[in-house]
Formats: sequence, structure tokens, C-alpha cells
Amino acid sequence: MNYCSDCGASVSLRIPSGDDRPRFVCERCGTVHYENPKMVVGCIPRWRDRILLCRRAIEPRYGHWTLPAGYLENQETVQQGAAREALEEAGAVVRDLQPFAILNIASISQVYFMFLAELEDGPWVPGKESLEVRLFESHAIPWRELAFSSISKTLELYLEDLGRGPFSFHIADIQA
Amino acid sequence: MNYCSDCGASVSLRIPSGDDRPRFVCERCGTVHYENPKMVVGCIPRWRDRILLCRRAIEPRYGHWTLPAGYLENQETVQQGAAREALEEAGAVVRDLQPFAILNIASISQVYFMFLAELEDGPWVPGKESLEVRLFESHAIPWRELAFSSISKTLELYLEDLGRGPFSFHIADIQA
Repeated sequence: MNYCSDCGASVSLRIPSGDDRPRFVCERCGTVHYENPKMVVGCIPRWRDRILLCRRAIEPRYGHWTLPAGYLENQETVQQGAAREALEEAGAVVRDLQPFAILNIASISQVYFMFLAELEDGPWVPGKESLEVRLFESHAIPWRELAFSSISKTLELYLEDLGRGPFSFHIADIQA
Repeated sequence: MNYCSDCGASVSLRIPSGDDRPRFVCERCGTVHYENPKMVVGCIPRWRDRILLCRRAIEPRYGHWTLPAGYLENQETVQQGAAREALEEAGAVVRDLQPFAILNIASISQVYFMFLAELEDGPWVPGKESLEVRLFESHAIPWRELAFSSISKTLELYLEDLGRGPFSFHIADIQA
């Protein structure tokens, strides 16, 4: 951040009076610009004993497999955001969303919130951010071709719960 | 948002190419400025059969009671943020944080993530954002003097679980 989004003057990074950490503060109008973590919402779409993954058509990690997930938008609930991402990335309608995991990636100020979800029958169609959409059995998950550590962690937790049942809610920290 | 925080030129609200919703876009450098929901993290600090509440020394809702909670900061996990808020607002050290609820307030683009926590022995000391810190038994919760609907909802869910046990993880939507 270089300029105040309110008045257009320069900002400086300093600790405002009464605060305890540096913020961007406008040198003219004094507005304090807070920056906060972003939420990523997504789901594990389940169809019978298989799960749906998308192969990314965009950077970063073009060509790698991911669960449908993306940034939560303003005026949206986390359930709505997760369902929207499945529809956008895989043409997939999901229902019965059940909270499954919250994953911190503090180093890049991201928080993932992932659901388990039931997948309505297809056809499932790759959206513009996906090259391909495919169902995988648990033993066939392409571990070495997954896009992000958050996705690997989510699927590891899923398989652990699947092995011993029932599904529970998880919290985990990830080093980016 | 009126000006680009990167280059200082004017922004306009329009749907960028390939997007599906309006964003602030810089008219000079073309940077798209995404705005996303903020996370509020907090906890229900438990000490024996009582819970700790703080009476707010700041607006909004000056003088009303709240659970310790506040905006998640960059580079922080949700557990760290919830523990920090308890320390800042009540001088309280909490441990054994257990995920309890996620609450959407979509109308104001906020997502609350609340924990159950065990409270270390006091004394507990009001921080600069609190007038007073006090332990309440369940039957004595000051329902009509609570600061926010998110806090009321969290405490309702807590009492429901307390009545029938065990504690589970909840998801709820709140109209602001």
C-alpha cells in the first residue's frame, strides 16, 4: 500500500496511537488502513465412495489437482461460498454441507474453512479455472500432483476419519 | 474506496474482464482491488461452572457485555487471535481451545469463529477496551445487556450443549 484509498495522499507504516502493531496510516486524512487475513472456503464433494477433484487451468499450480475452493466474497456465508466454488470450478451442485476443518496458513494470512458435501449427480463440467474434473477413489488420489498443502492436509484428515469414522471437526496449522 | 492504494489514481467500480461481480479497478494502472470478509475470533472462557464476560469501554455498544473477541490479525492463527483477545480485553490466559462455532453475518461481511476455552486462575484485569471483567454463572448471564447478536447466539448454543452435552461444533447464520 502506497496511497490512501480514501483521499489519495501518501501513507506511512507506523503504530497508531493506542495500537500495538504497524498499520498503513494516511499522512493527510489520518485514516488507518487495517489489513486482515482472507478466508478460503471449499469442500470435499463426495459421490458414493469417490471424491471430486479439479485440475487447475490457472496459476499458481497450473495443471495440478485441487478440491474446489476459493476466496470468500463479501455478503456471502461460508456455506454459500463453498457451494459457489464447486459450481464455478466443476459445474457441481453440492448439498448437505458439514463443517470439516479449519486450516491456518498464518505465514500468508489465509484461513481455510472446508466442508464435507454430498455431490449431486453429474455431468460435472470444468469451469474456466479448471482443465478437467474427475472422481477419484480414496486409493487413487494423486498425492504428488495436488496443488496446495492445504488440499493435501484436508484429504489426509478425510482419509483418517474415513478409516476410523465418524467424521469430526478438525483444526490444523500449515506451514506455507 | 476512491483511490488506488498502489498508484494513487482514481478507481471505478466495474466488473473486470473474466469476473462476475463489481470490483474497484484503477483507471490508470488497472489493479483490481478485491474486498473480502473479515474474521472475528474469540472464545467462551470457562472457569469452573462460570464464564468470563467483559463490559465494553468502547463503541459500538459501550457499557454492554461481550465475550472477548476481535478481528483476526495478519500472520496469526485463529487460536492465537482468540487467545490474544482474551489477554487484551480481560488480562485472561486461556488454554485448551476447542472449536465451538462459526457464525456468518453476511450482511456486514463478517465471519465469527468462536472457541471454548479453559481460563487460568485470575486475577483478571480489564484491558483498555473493557470497563469491567466478571464471571457469570449460566443462570445469571445478562442477556438484555449483551453487546452483539453474535455473542447472544454463541451463548445460546453454549447453554444448549451444556444442558444436553457433549459440546459439538456449530454453524449458524445471523441477521445483523
